[in-house]
Amino acid sequence: MENKPIALDDKLKEACGVFGIFSSMENIHLSRTIFYGLYALQHRGQESAGIAVTSGYGIDYYKNLGLVSEVFNDDNILDKLQGNIGIGHVRYSTNGANTLINSQPLVVKYKNGSLAVAHNGNLINALRLREELEQEGAVFQTTVDSELIACLIAQDRSGDIVTAIKSCMSKIKGSYALVIMTENSLIGVRDPYGMRPLSLGKLNDSWVLTSETCALDTVGAEFVRDVEPGEILIINKDGIRSVMGEKASSRALCVFEFVYFARPDSNIEGRNVHLARFKAGMNLAKEHPADADLVIGVPDSGTVSAMGYAEASGIPFSIGIIKNRYIGRTFIKPSQDLRLIGVTLKLNALKEVIKGKRLVMVDDSIVRGTTSGKIVRMLKDAGAKEVHVRISSPPVTHSCYFGIDTSSQKELIGAQQSIEEIRKFIEADSLGYLSLEGLIDSTGIPANNFCTGCFSGQYPIKVMGDGGKYLYEKC
Amino acid sequence: MENKPIALDDKLKEACGVFGIFSSMENIHLSRTIFYGLYALQHRGQESAGIAVTSGYGIDYYKNLGLVSEVFNDDNILDKLQGNIGIGHVRYSTNGANTLINSQPLVVKYKNGSLAVAHNGNLINALRLREELEQEGAVFQTTVDSELIACLIAQDRSGDIVTAIKSCMSKIKGSYALVIMTENSLIGVRDPYGMRPLSLGKLNDSWVLTSETCALDTVGAEFVRDVEPGEILIINKDGIRSVMGEKASSRALCVFEFVYFARPDSNIEGRNVHLARFKAGMNLAKEHPADADLVIGVPDSGTVSAMGYAEASGIPFSIGIIKNRYIGRTFIKPSQDLRLIGVTLKLNALKEVIKGKRLVMVDDSIVRGTTSGKIVRMLKDAGAKEVHVRISSPPVTHSCYFGIDTSSQKELIGAQQSIEEIRKFIEADSLGYLSLEGLIDSTGIPANNFCTGCFSGQYPIKVMGDGGKYLYEKC
Amino acid sequence: MENKPIALDDKLKEACGVFGIFSSMENIHLSRTIFYGLYALQHRGQESAGIAVTSGYGIDYYKNLGLVSEVFNDDNILDKLQGNIGIGHVRYSTNGANTLINSQPLVVKYKNGSLAVAHNGNLINALRLREELEQEGAVFQTTVDSELIACLIAQDRSGDIVTAIKSCMSKIKGSYALVIMTENSLIGVRDPYGMRPLSLGKLNDSWVLTSETCALDTVGAEFVRDVEPGEILIINKDGIRSVMGEKASSRALCVFEFVYFARPDSNIEGRNVHLARFKAGMNLAKEHPADADLVIGVPDSGTVSAMGYAEASGIPFSIGIIKNRYIGRTFIKPSQDLRLIGVTLKLNALKEVIKGKRLVMVDDSIVRGTTSGKIVRMLKDAGAKEVHVRISSPPVTHSCYFGIDTSSQKELIGAQQSIEEIRKFIEADSLGYLSLEGLIDSTGIPANNFCTGCFSGQYPIKVMGDGGKYLYEKC
Amino acid sequence: MENKPIALDDKLKEACGVFGIFSSMENIHLSRTIFYGLYALQHRGQESAGIAVTSGYGIDYYKNLGLVSEVFNDDNILDKLQGNIGIGHVRYSTNGANTLINSQPLVVKYKNGSLAVAHNGNLINALRLREELEQEGAVFQTTVDSELIACLIAQDRSGDIVTAIKSCMSKIKGSYALVIMTENSLIGVRDPYGMRPLSLGKLNDSWVLTSETCALDTVGAEFVRDVEPGEILIINKDGIRSVMGEKASSRALCVFEFVYFARPDSNIEGRNVHLARFKAGMNLAKEHPADADLVIGVPDSGTVSAMGYAEASGIPFSIGIIKNRYIGRTFIKPSQDLRLIGVTLKLNALKEVIKGKRLVMVDDSIVRGTTSGKIVRMLKDAGAKEVHVRISSPPVTHSCYFGIDTSSQKELIGAQQSIEEIRKFIEADSLGYLSLEGLIDSTGIPANNFCTGCFSGQYPIKVMGDGGKYLYEKC
Repeated sequence: MENKPIALDDKLKEACGVFGIFSSMENIHLSRTIFYGLYALQHRGQESAGIAVTSGYGIDYYKNLGLVSEVFNDDNILDKLQGNIGIGHVRYSTNGANTLINSQPLVVKYKNGSLAVAHNGNLINALRLREELEQEGAVFQTTVDSELIACLIAQDRSGDIVTAIKSCMSKIKGSYALVIMTENSLIGVRDPYGMRPLSLGKLNDSWVLTSETCALDTVGAEFVRDVEPGEILIINKDGIRSVMGEKASSRALCVFEFVYFARPDSNIEGRNVHLARFKAGMNLAKEHPADADLVIGVPDSGTVSAMGYAEASGIPFSIGIIKNRYIGRTFIKPSQDLRLIGVTLKLNALKEVIKGKRLVMVDDSIVRGTTSGKIVRMLKDAGAKEVHVRISSPPVTHSCYFGIDTSSQKELIGAQQSIEEIRKFIEADSLGYLSLEGLIDSTGIPANNFCTGCFSGQYPIKVMGDGGKYLYEKC
Repeated sequence: MENKPIALDDKLKEACGVFGIFSSMENIHLSRTIFYGLYALQHRGQESAGIAVTSGYGIDYYKNLGLVSEVFNDDNILDKLQGNIGIGHVRYSTNGANTLINSQPLVVKYKNGSLAVAHNGNLINALRLREELEQEGAVFQTTVDSELIACLIAQDRSGDIVTAIKSCMSKIKGSYALVIMTENSLIGVRDPYGMRPLSLGKLNDSWVLTSETCALDTVGAEFVRDVEPGEILIINKDGIRSVMGEKASSRALCVFEFVYFARPDSNIEGRNVHLARFKAGMNLAKEHPADADLVIGVPDSGTVSAMGYAEASGIPFSIGIIKNRYIGRTFIKPSQDLRLIGVTLKLNALKEVIKGKRLVMVDDSIVRGTTSGKIVRMLKDAGAKEVHVRISSPPVTHSCYFGIDTSSQKELIGAQQSIEEIRKFIEADSLGYLSLEGLIDSTGIPANNFCTGCFSGQYPIKVMGDGGKYLYEKC
Repeated sequence: MENKPIALDDKLKEACGVFGIFSSMENIHLSRTIFYGLYALQHRGQESAGIAVTSGYGIDYYKNLGLVSEVFNDDNILDKLQGNIGIGHVRYSTNGANTLINSQPLVVKYKNGSLAVAHNGNLINALRLREELEQEGAVFQTTVDSELIACLIAQDRSGDIVTAIKSCMSKIKGSYALVIMTENSLIGVRDPYGMRPLSLGKLNDSWVLTSETCALDTVGAEFVRDVEPGEILIINKDGIRSVMGEKASSRALCVFEFVYFARPDSNIEGRNVHLARFKAGMNLAKEHPADADLVIGVPDSGTVSAMGYAEASGIPFSIGIIKNRYIGRTFIKPSQDLRLIGVTLKLNALKEVIKGKRLVMVDDSIVRGTTSGKIVRMLKDAGAKEVHVRISSPPVTHSCYFGIDTSSQKELIGAQQSIEEIRKFIEADSLGYLSLEGLIDSTGIPANNFCTGCFSGQYPIKVMGDGGKYLYEKC
Repeated sequence: MENKPIALDDKLKEACGVFGIFSSMENIHLSRTIFYGLYALQHRGQESAGIAVTSGYGIDYYKNLGLVSEVFNDDNILDKLQGNIGIGHVRYSTNGANTLINSQPLVVKYKNGSLAVAHNGNLINALRLREELEQEGAVFQTTVDSELIACLIAQDRSGDIVTAIKSCMSKIKGSYALVIMTENSLIGVRDPYGMRPLSLGKLNDSWVLTSETCALDTVGAEFVRDVEPGEILIINKDGIRSVMGEKASSRALCVFEFVYFARPDSNIEGRNVHLARFKAGMNLAKEHPADADLVIGVPDSGTVSAMGYAEASGIPFSIGIIKNRYIGRTFIKPSQDLRLIGVTLKLNALKEVIKGKRLVMVDDSIVRGTTSGKIVRMLKDAGAKEVHVRISSPPVTHSCYFGIDTSSQKELIGAQQSIEEIRKFIEADSLGYLSLEGLIDSTGIPANNFCTGCFSGQYPIKVMGDGGKYLYEKC
């Protein structure tokens, strides 16, 4: 606990990224491609990474705590992971003594051979399903949903993996983008609401599955299409086959992928994330104009929307804050000094640019409100005359139960305070949040295709209780 | 593979040691006592170590690869493991990428709460039982028997842990000394043949279970009695209770515990190991006298029997070989140089003692025959006139299926060559092995109380096939 | 050698950053402030970091290989470094087995007590001076200039540190920004040409010395002034005192600090680096206009000049390339795959933005030319119709002997090929470099105040031979 | 400080071991032979290890904290250390933050090239010599004598290494066994009193220098002769040459090498250590007979003398105490539990052997008296009727200034208490120490050839003050 790093930002955390690849060529060495793919998905999870491969008999895997580059820093590890099918996973989670055991992919032996499962999302009925399986004699060694999913697949008596996955899907509720590997196939699965993204690509003769399309670019693959909500994609020697696993009731893609999680060079449901954020900035300018001299963004995530704001408002854009490129995933220990130093370890105002200026400062979101006030203060200390804070998404007012690390609702400043109270708290001269409509408009996707739970409290699936107990190990 | 350390000795390897403790006092801190207990059992397994504790709600554990002192080298780890019940495990295994996941105790959640299992031994029907459980939908993440045992316990529907363990015992075949921990009890179990040792002790108000009595001395506990073959000992707030789990058909204690595995300061079935080895040396002198000037032992394991040989033969005993005390568990990488250097990194002849002498060189066993010849050569190079090799146990001719790392039968020199061939191979002037009768006589325990499979091929339980496939992960 | 990481960029490397602080208050704990200061200077050196402190009697220090956050990742280390005076250092160097011994600050005992030296720069007569000292009996344990400087200071017989430093300065030739610590004083020294930057700041009652002003902002200090070329600043209990150490002949600040090295939020000689780079982009637009639809920058270093180019040309600016924020200091091992993947592990084109567009692509410099062609290719693969490459500095044609890691002249593409040849090599539709005049104009500082050696071959000090042998351990 | 391990024994600590090898063959790879040699000398120092090699141009080296097997656990390290000349060092020292910098060999560049120095011993005038060199301008980065010795060699203006070493020897006072390496020669030096051992051997065409002859056996070399007190042995392409460096006044070999330090398989001055210890036990029996049933030794160091005692007294010898073979260099953290557990973590009584017996317990020495009492208590708890403690050396009454870690005199129980007081303190039934005459007789070497300072206070060189300040970094 005392080693808990200080969060130097105030962001929701994505919980996982998944990647898979299948080649029908034998003697091919795919672990390095998976490594590069996970590299491109690193922003979706920085606490553990793992790769599992098969060449038809048994599954080899390696996982550990750390960044992809740290876990696979020894070429020998990748060299030993030989196979023509493979999956990988990056994970974010709250730190604990036994998190290694919770790293993924989860690999098990069951009656039909070996099975590896990598999951992005969160099952909201996991505890109940675990209890049911336990009643039938099951034991659990981890707290991750992947273990539950593997167990449910193993329960099926049909002997057919697709039937088993369909059976599993009929039981689990929540969000899931899965890549599953048997000893001869790669399988992609997306929950019936399509809450978390999953895309299909092609790299020469290989098929690729990935949480985000940016990983396709990184490994040199072509985008083919998104996996559909409720769809099961089975890739094996016979080619690629699509089965509807669980009928999609309605679409409910996590809108926060567009706000912050996804990399700007990824496309989700055909829409480029960078362009959506630029458009969100434009909409923000229309909804919350400001009488100002300069628009600046809070790097890195606020920059694009700031450019959009500038474009729509006609107020010039400039870089006004410089980010320390080495702050990365640094574990800064709490200390008296640090509180004094505040945000300056990560960000620094460009005095010469902002001195005497009335600023529009654009950021993508405010979660707990712990850093925005410090940035406003830094800008004013550097000579800004006014700071008008504009947020390119609505206030975060509700917890997420589907794979995102929102703190408990009590910690969400948007749930606890009015906008005027928040403005005072962060000492901004004015504060404007983009409306939910404005945000959705920026994506070019119909509103009813999104889960907007964290902004609206409207979840696609009914969540009982405060849901908190379900969240101890997301992803 | 290329990193496989060179074995600088030629010994059978014990596979595991277990330790458990229960105190009815709350707020007591037992992890350090377990640590000391595992320390005393370190010779039974040097590749991983683990401790699991409970204070009534959930189980905390920590395990890792390495010696006990390496795994628990950070006081914080022990400090965080707080509980009034705890178990520990040390393990030897063939090295592999995923051995961490195979380290013990194995901790699971099941319908009745949390469960930790530590096992010494080997189940010979593990594969079949796993397949049966898999047919019913179970998944396995490790290859250790502890996971199977936990699964079998979890299968039971009685809601009573003792019933569950009895049910488990009715299914599993093979050797097992188990310490099991629930959230409120410590349980010791020994297989119906009592193949692997397990003893009960008392430390103030706490009960202690341990593979060997030397650990009782280390932690300051009093020996109470051995756990009986087939017995289940349940220790909880209500005291200690004995249940016959599976009726003992016949006793079959592993005789190799006396030959090499057990620490000389341990007592097994009431018989001190050191004294038995001394007696074995005496018997050896009677069976295979030699016309020699001096008796020396190959340190450390041959020393005591050499003293016994000297006593019985009247030939003076002397230290003739010095062992490097820092050779420990060193991983020496194979190299051309090393082959030239041979055994001298570990052992050195005392020239001044042996020069011009006709030696009796006593060792406890010859397994693959890789080092004995080098030692004989070293002694002759140092001036010994004759070297009469005497082994205080019979030739190892059969594989063990019950928890010992014998190599495959093909590698056992005793199975492949006649004694005269072995003598020539190791260039000894004469070679004598203690007879099985002589060995058993040295223990003072009736012959039919032992498993002598590795010497005789007579196993207490019928083993089908070559058994090799059962052995991938012993202990 | 086989472990040499692939450079994923094509930049000159800064060699070091220095930081120092003095407080007249006793019982103050400054190591954490130095830690934060080094954090802000991390871009100046990522291979080793060190901190040395004193509280009046002896000097304590800790240094190791790695980033500042890695070297000081254990709070205990900082907690043990107690003192009211301290200096720190970050270093870049070619990797080798013994680089730890070359990490700084260098701490020695000499006749007047303990001394710590941290150096940014390169002495071009170091070898000759070492040989002279060796002739007098000196021994050297490292290859860093700091050791030589400490030796020269120790040679002085005056008993006065300032006299000793002046004597040292009269002998050494080359670039140096030094922070020196005795047991009671902090001293800043800058070479007579002022080749490397060094600034003075104030934090409450403490004085701060730093390579760049961004570190003053990070620790909350006020900028006071730059240390002057040739100046010695002595800070102790009696206050701050300035002595002219070696008369400045002419100013020769490294112009590459403005091009690439310095953080944009630093001011050098009163000029903000970010604004200079923006202006360089404007000048570039005037010198090398392009008929294009969009201006994009190669992140991160090309972005600001791209904005300036857009401003001056009237062509819209957009983000066209996304950088993986986790690429950091990753050591990517060479592999066949990687060559295929090329630059995409680090950078990705924003297809939706650049498709069908005629692009101006702005970067700050081309050194070996290894990546520019790959980026052009990536942009065209992503649909760019034309790519007009614009570089906001002149071709790098000569090696640097004053603290920068230019490769040997043979590897500098600007020295080996004409601009048209380079254009063809990188497959750009056109290529334009900013003129030296345009670059200098962007800084607002007179031309004769700069060292422009890497662009012009005109060095402030005559360098004999090819200088290569002087460069084995810069900084 | 709080991490200081509890000493589980009560022994004087040897401070260093040195090893060197020279081959006139080029392209030979000697680092592995040095590694094996250091392995054999590991008992002389367990805190750091280092190897330096040359193949004629420059010196490569690697050193680190840890056992030889830990420091060189990566084959790549040894593979990179290529050369036909090499030296190595193992070191014991009091632990500190910067001990890495104090590890050896010390490698420097000086006017005649590169030089590596490895030292076993202690210079008693080191501080004064350092001060003199500092007055002349020298700086020191470490606190080890090797750095001083390198400096003194570098001071010499003759250009001849032998002249330089002679000059150095004329200045330094104290004990030293040195192996020195230039780029083309290996040099062995022993102080004029021959206080620390150094032997010469031959391995095929290579010459070997080693602190102890056991390392010759390990690497397969033949013993040639001991280096003489005051002798310089120069080994290079022209062969081997002996020069008298500093005339030997009188011999003063450290007698404690025979008591405890040296490995029993080493010969010192032609006398085997094992045999000397056996004889010491015999002499002890004559000086201090006991009316007892059984003689036992405290393992490992007391065993041989116990055998000698048994032989001379006619009382049977037996193993009575078992030592945990994994206790090694374990860093046991202090804890309340441990004090309760006492000595049992390391040693255990063989109850079955000693019960009801009157024991003679032989140990080699008592230093601070911290463990003897615990062992006596353990034996009595295990049923011993009487325990007669016999020590095979005299009481340690004085500090050593020549390379041994005696605690300060205040901590030496032999200096503070009478023998009867010590007997009471350790609760022995009787206590007898071997006389100095008896000890010397056991070695077969004339008394005036020894330094017996720790027993007699008679040092070969006058030591001023309490000497304590000279001892901060021995070896």
